[in-house]
Amino acid sequence: MRATVLVRPKAGILDPQGDAVEHSLRKLGFDVSGVRVGRVVDLEVEADDEDTARAQIEKMCHELLANPLIESFEVRFGES
Amino acid sequence: MRATVLVRPKAGILDPQGDAVEHSLRKLGFDVSGVRVGRVVDLEVEADDEDTARAQIEKMCHELLANPLIESFEVRFGES
Repeated sequence: MRATVLVRPKAGILDPQGDAVEHSLRKLGFDVSGVRVGRVVDLEVEADDEDTARAQIEKMCHELLANPLIESFEVRFGES
Repeated sequence: MRATVLVRPKAGILDPQGDAVEHSLRKLGFDVSGVRVGRVVDLEVEADDEDTARAQIEKMCHELLANPLIESFEVRFGES
């Protein structure tokens, strides 16, 4: 089953990469604010249904894909 | 206007980060394949409507957020 995981810095957590991108975009003349940079992970997981796949992916997030202290994650199906 | 940009390695382009994540997930016992890692950029852009915002963001992608030679990007509204 194909799934997409979005991993983002939590609100209130400093995001130096987002700050750098925002600074560069503004220097290029774009009127932007509140830039936050995270990761998108697309993967194929062996599972019979979405609930099983979601449970596995949440485990992957806690063990490897995200740092739950400072990052939030969101799992989606049928996107990639 | 709040927008989300997903930047992904194009199909056929090597993705060493995805390969490394896949290898680590498999070592942890997860049955995964086809792992690809990209970036998610959330931002607030000054624009009166979605079409204007989308045009600006596509320009940002070509100038800074993505490398169109090896990465594809997708713009979404109302997600973050």
